[in-house]
Amino acid sequence: MTATQNQSTDKKYLDTKMVVKVYGPTYASPKRVLACLIEKEIEFETVDVDLFKGEHKEPEFLKLQPFGSVPVIQDGDYTLYESRAIIRYLAEKYKEQGTELLGKTIEEKGLVEQWLEVEAHNFHPPLYNLVINILFAPLMGAPSDQKVIEESDKKLEKVLDVYEERLSNSKYLAGDFFSLADLSHLPFGHYLVNQTGRGNLVRERKHVSAWWDDISNRPSWKKVLQQYKYPV
Amino acid sequence: MTATQNQSTDKKYLDTKMVVKVYGPTYASPKRVLACLIEKEIEFETVDVDLFKGEHKEPEFLKLQPFGSVPVIQDGDYTLYESRAIIRYLAEKYKEQGTELLGKTIEEKGLVEQWLEVEAHNFHPPLYNLVINILFAPLMGAPSDQKVIEESDKKLEKVLDVYEERLSNSKYLAGDFFSLADLSHLPFGHYLVNQTGRGNLVRERKHVSAWWDDISNRPSWKKVLQQYKYPV
Repeated sequence: MTATQNQSTDKKYLDTKMVVKVYGPTYASPKRVLACLIEKEIEFETVDVDLFKGEHKEPEFLKLQPFGSVPVIQDGDYTLYESRAIIRYLAEKYKEQGTELLGKTIEEKGLVEQWLEVEAHNFHPPLYNLVINILFAPLMGAPSDQKVIEESDKKLEKVLDVYEERLSNSKYLAGDFFSLADLSHLPFGHYLVNQTGRGNLVRERKHVSAWWDDISNRPSWKKVLQQYKYPV
Repeated sequence: MTATQNQSTDKKYLDTKMVVKVYGPTYASPKRVLACLIEKEIEFETVDVDLFKGEHKEPEFLKLQPFGSVPVIQDGDYTLYESRAIIRYLAEKYKEQGTELLGKTIEEKGLVEQWLEVEAHNFHPPLYNLVINILFAPLMGAPSDQKVIEESDKKLEKVLDVYEERLSNSKYLAGDFFSLADLSHLPFGHYLVNQTGRGNLVRERKHVSAWWDDISNRPSWKKVLQQYKYPV
């Protein structure tokens, strides 16, 4: 594992102050955390973890994340994993700075939570299957499962139909404010639009398309893409 | 859909005051919400939704939950779905009453979030596959997928090994306090221990076993089981 400081962090400063450490910045899920850190104007540094070399299964890493997946953060002597837990923690801890990402009222927060869960349980699973079978399987010399691809396409279309309806009534998923719920779609949404040959699923839906352009053009996300290339 | 008042709710009171309405109380995921409502001492009533008759795909229901799944709650004119979002909302809104389920500090809250995510992404998926293939498939006259069963068993064992290690260091998942993270395991944990023939996965692990006895013997959970029978 190799530590790299974020370009916005001054080296001398880094030596004297604890900054948040993020493990596995090149991979998709950790990019949720990176986008959140930048939106919240939190200083951080990154530590590379090479999943292709199995570094996430080494004892040193398993001490931080016993399930062997990225991301993990260290904030001083506090360790936390699971990307969607980390972004909630950061948005809460640094409530007073950067973009407000949690919603202001209890009702707004509830809707942010609802759409975070929708992202995790409706949007993510079929898209993850597409990414694995279309992008990663060929790379690993494994066969792509056509049946899984077809089923995932159908599921994802239905999910995006619901999004289209929702986004015809509000600018963002949880309401008229950008939140963790939108942000959480960026890393795998990027694969969907740019690398699976399925940009049409977004482009054929007027409101989903406008929403995607809006959130993927945020400076925070552009910075993540520039500084932390995807492995595929 | 048929509305039923919770036995603890006085009928006259119900007529004059809005109480939280929970859709689909007999099914597993809505039981997260029921356990939370009881822990938080919140009055509620339930509305039956018969998934076997396809009531969750009827237009009236889809207006509440466009993905067609349970639970949904209505709290006055506020509608919310996704069980793990609902329990966060309730725990936050009713912070001052009943059991504190979110953690007291930002760091405790972060760990509650982490273990809620672990439940959703590590514990739940293999267990869900077991429940579908062992309990529901035979009931629907569908074949059980032995390969899926074997893979799910292996995954779940590994997950529970991590739990055993964690629970040897702290009484509950997020620390020495019962939280949403533990509560969230109850509905499918019940299936695991009592109905899949896999109670041994829990019983063979000393700390997991003690934790399960602790959380499943809470009065709130016993009340859920007594009042809202599982469909299977």
